[in-house]
Amino acid sequence: MSSDAERLSELAKRRGFYFPASGAYGGVAGFYVYGPQGAALKRNLEDTWRDQFVVKEGHEEIDAPTIMPEPVFEASGHLDGFDDMIVECPECGESHRADHLVEDNTDIEEAESYSPEEVAELIAEYDLECPSCHAKLAGTEVSEFNLMFGTNIGPGSSSPGYLRPETAQGIFVEFPRLKEYARNTLPFGVAQIGTAYRNEISPRRGLIRVREFTQAELEHFIDPEADEPPLHRVADVEVTLYPAAQQQADGQEYVTMTVGDAVEQGVIESAWVGYYLGVAAGWYERIGVDMDRFRYRQHLAGERAHYASDCWDAEAELDGNWVEITGFAYRGDYDLSHHGAHSGEEFTIFKQYDEPKTVERAVVDPDMAYLGPEYGSAAGQIVEELEALAARDRSAFDGDDVTVEVDGEAYTIPVEKTGFAVEEQTESGEHITPHVVEPSFGVGRIVHTVLEHAMTEDEVDGEERTFLKLVPELAPTNVAVFPLMDRDGMGEQAHEIADTLRQYGLSAAYDDSGNIGRRYRRQDEIGTPFCVTVDYESLEDGTVTVRERDTTAQARVAIADLPELLLALRAGDRSFDDL
Amino acid sequence: MSSDAERLSELAKRRGFYFPASGAYGGVAGFYVYGPQGAALKRNLEDTWRDQFVVKEGHEEIDAPTIMPEPVFEASGHLDGFDDMIVECPECGESHRADHLVEDNTDIEEAESYSPEEVAELIAEYDLECPSCHAKLAGTEVSEFNLMFGTNIGPGSSSPGYLRPETAQGIFVEFPRLKEYARNTLPFGVAQIGTAYRNEISPRRGLIRVREFTQAELEHFIDPEADEPPLHRVADVEVTLYPAAQQQADGQEYVTMTVGDAVEQGVIESAWVGYYLGVAAGWYERIGVDMDRFRYRQHLAGERAHYASDCWDAEAELDGNWVEITGFAYRGDYDLSHHGAHSGEEFTIFKQYDEPKTVERAVVDPDMAYLGPEYGSAAGQIVEELEALAARDRSAFDGDDVTVEVDGEAYTIPVEKTGFAVEEQTESGEHITPHVVEPSFGVGRIVHTVLEHAMTEDEVDGEERTFLKLVPELAPTNVAVFPLMDRDGMGEQAHEIADTLRQYGLSAAYDDSGNIGRRYRRQDEIGTPFCVTVDYESLEDGTVTVRERDTTAQARVAIADLPELLLALRAGDRSFDDL
Repeated sequence: MSSDAERLSELAKRRGFYFPASGAYGGVAGFYVYGPQGAALKRNLEDTWRDQFVVKEGHEEIDAPTIMPEPVFEASGHLDGFDDMIVECPECGESHRADHLVEDNTDIEEAESYSPEEVAELIAEYDLECPSCHAKLAGTEVSEFNLMFGTNIGPGSSSPGYLRPETAQGIFVEFPRLKEYARNTLPFGVAQIGTAYRNEISPRRGLIRVREFTQAELEHFIDPEADEPPLHRVADVEVTLYPAAQQQADGQEYVTMTVGDAVEQGVIESAWVGYYLGVAAGWYERIGVDMDRFRYRQHLAGERAHYASDCWDAEAELDGNWVEITGFAYRGDYDLSHHGAHSGEEFTIFKQYDEPKTVERAVVDPDMAYLGPEYGSAAGQIVEELEALAARDRSAFDGDDVTVEVDGEAYTIPVEKTGFAVEEQTESGEHITPHVVEPSFGVGRIVHTVLEHAMTEDEVDGEERTFLKLVPELAPTNVAVFPLMDRDGMGEQAHEIADTLRQYGLSAAYDDSGNIGRRYRRQDEIGTPFCVTVDYESLEDGTVTVRERDTTAQARVAIADLPELLLALRAGDRSFDDL
Repeated sequence: MSSDAERLSELAKRRGFYFPASGAYGGVAGFYVYGPQGAALKRNLEDTWRDQFVVKEGHEEIDAPTIMPEPVFEASGHLDGFDDMIVECPECGESHRADHLVEDNTDIEEAESYSPEEVAELIAEYDLECPSCHAKLAGTEVSEFNLMFGTNIGPGSSSPGYLRPETAQGIFVEFPRLKEYARNTLPFGVAQIGTAYRNEISPRRGLIRVREFTQAELEHFIDPEADEPPLHRVADVEVTLYPAAQQQADGQEYVTMTVGDAVEQGVIESAWVGYYLGVAAGWYERIGVDMDRFRYRQHLAGERAHYASDCWDAEAELDGNWVEITGFAYRGDYDLSHHGAHSGEEFTIFKQYDEPKTVERAVVDPDMAYLGPEYGSAAGQIVEELEALAARDRSAFDGDDVTVEVDGEAYTIPVEKTGFAVEEQTESGEHITPHVVEPSFGVGRIVHTVLEHAMTEDEVDGEERTFLKLVPELAPTNVAVFPLMDRDGMGEQAHEIADTLRQYGLSAAYDDSGNIGRRYRRQDEIGTPFCVTVDYESLEDGTVTVRERDTTAQARVAIADLPELLLALRAGDRSFDDL
């Protein structure tokens, strides 16, 4: 860990943003607790996401269980395909992620796209060592390790379940019911903010690679033939793109262009993916991501998840590395068609034609009074074969007899006994499997990004200051209230003001410890945008000092005006400069 | 299931409040999905809880992992004590909860308080049958089944973990850090809204007994010697109490009195528990719980959890049964002292004395130049024994020699070589283990309560109507916007209005399907408090009709005034009658 990450990690732990869980018991890698500041920040961030991707887009949000039964993951492909490569040190027994070993110790990038055998060869070729005990790993087997946490539902082991590796499956599996809520009409979007789990072999880098994390996912179900996104809403949004072609050319040549142009020129293949890149860009700006340390990177072909046909990542520069914070995948009909095939339920939408279509169908209506006595127990199967044959090859019924095979035996039936006919049928529509466009946000990684990008240093009154330039909408504490000193009734009044502000739904802190300068620094460090100080003047004329975080500017305000003023400042309806 | 429950379950499924999960795969008992309406209602409910129990009380909220390592639950007592009684049918192999079998088929209540052997005897005595196959269960063993879901953290099985059975443990385990955020000062409260898991043997009754559920828990850490709750704030709140004494008298004799009187008269033993019963009563009313179908019931001695020294439940009448929706437990120092003992970390708070105290301490400072050569390898242990003896019995040092025992052997040491002395020490405080007051809310059960208590039937225009009388603060959809018909620009205008309202953070639905009356009914059924209709007049004069759910009263309002009006109606700042 270099400087930025270390400073953030220290601040996060000390000031209650986040810290490793179960520290009293020595900790368990990959699990983090969001402390009071972090939980509030994360919640505020989720609220803005909901506002942007659910409310404003007119989608729905659900809340599905985190434990799901095994058949779900047989269908989704996670039971077979959701593996990482593991190598267990023959000396110390420690397990490591094999592809990361290669990436960390060679110039090879994206070692994940190699096979386990290839990675084992690379380990031998570069003579890599166990990071724990430095034993040579050449010749050690590299195997696949499934990343799902398993458990048993109910007594015994007859009903295995897994903690979902993505919130998305909780939406896909319920599609047959969710489509009813959408009144069987495409397109519609269903979102979920919830916990997902990946039993990482080697969790690392704080909130970046953890075993339990929060995802905010939107599954937008569309008719790929008919539905178009409202691209005009974001056509003018400028984005920094890093297409696959540029990556393969091995240059850091980004393309900066509008979403509209990128879709029109085919830089972004799917207009739907383009639409969400545009919507998301607005959201990242809103929550304070530094857009100069941000890019959209297209996945290389070998890098895509088993379900994705095209994928772009939003990446943020964190401590000098590019880190995926959101994936925008065109999942096609992968998930719905697999769940349909595995469950036998309808994972389709009935699509009405503009006008009913008339089609010809070849059908049979066998004379059972003849077939029954003639063929006995084989009659039933003979009928099925006749039906299939009529649908497949109506010319088979051109002659006097028709022959079908049942259990290896041929049966020849007079055509006149089959009731063969070609009928005209009117169809009002067809069942189609919707396609899915999925923006999938890693909430913890975005929390990390917002914090790292907000860390600012300046100088106030000749002293160095570290503060978090969080947008007011995200700040965990909206306002801190201080008495100049806790005496002569100033403490009581400050408490009273804080209580009143809480009644207005503002998150208000009270602090009377240390001198005012120290208290300002304490709030600066957690990104509190405004501080209110009660002094002797306050007791006389009912006014207080309000101080703004970034500029440290101050203004004198009537206590009675505080709640509305602070609400307006948080909502961005007023600016501190105008006070 | 009788009528109320059936009607709610049907409505909940059809209209998207909640439904059994993974239905396409046959379902798994005990797991529910909150659909679009239910997820919104649940979120709104959690927001009011946070406002009441975190913001207004000045507490902090954290967000801790759901998977925790095994040592946590060794300490908390859940690994040993968190069991239900199970009986497995020898004929069909189905597992059942043994105490429920007894309760359901005899007059015995609270069979949970019996031992497994006693329950087995009752099963034999009453000749109970397997509910699945009707085989006789007499003579079948009743055993304990641990209700935690287990899993493995990382590769292999060397690091077992469990899904937390209560969110509380995520707070207790982190106490050493959380107390720092509270600047080592009592009292302070830490809350968490999150998922908890119980691997129920026989999940049943919809959201009432499930395997995965949301808890909202507050752990208030107090100094039992010094801290008092602000009881005056709720002293006048009237509550319906069902104390243990009344229950044992076997009458349904409730006691209705103010919280202040109940605490003063000792009906509620702990003033802290009384305080939270008062705060919670206000909240239940705020969210629309029918207080005529509500009571606070004290736990009987045999019924309390392993950690609780006194406990009251909030119970709601649901479909004729009393169901626990919240537990208010005085957990004492059970959790912190156990985690302290198991982890070796400090789960205490340093409590400063008002004035430093001077105490005498007997200490030793042995002459190692003498002890070393004299006693060799035993010298170290001899020093430890001397220290312990000085603290225990300073008179042992009155003579010329003192004798200690190490590994069964006696050593006699000249007192002058021990450096024995009685010193005066000044102590500024002591380490105390805080006590915990815990209000613990089952969010799903409260969602169920609010829905069942809101279901109302009346008659409108001669037709029966079912509607949900949800308080506006909880309603999943704040407003529905209809065009009279989707033609002549009315559809576009209605869409535009809905979009505008969404920009204001209101949850707005659009509906143009069916006649207006049907659309009203659809919204009534999901508890939407207001509907807006765009008609031909709207196109001319920019006004719309706003219709209120409960009274079906209508008012004509300017489109431009809609956002502020609806926000004020939701917040309760304006009333529809004044329009």
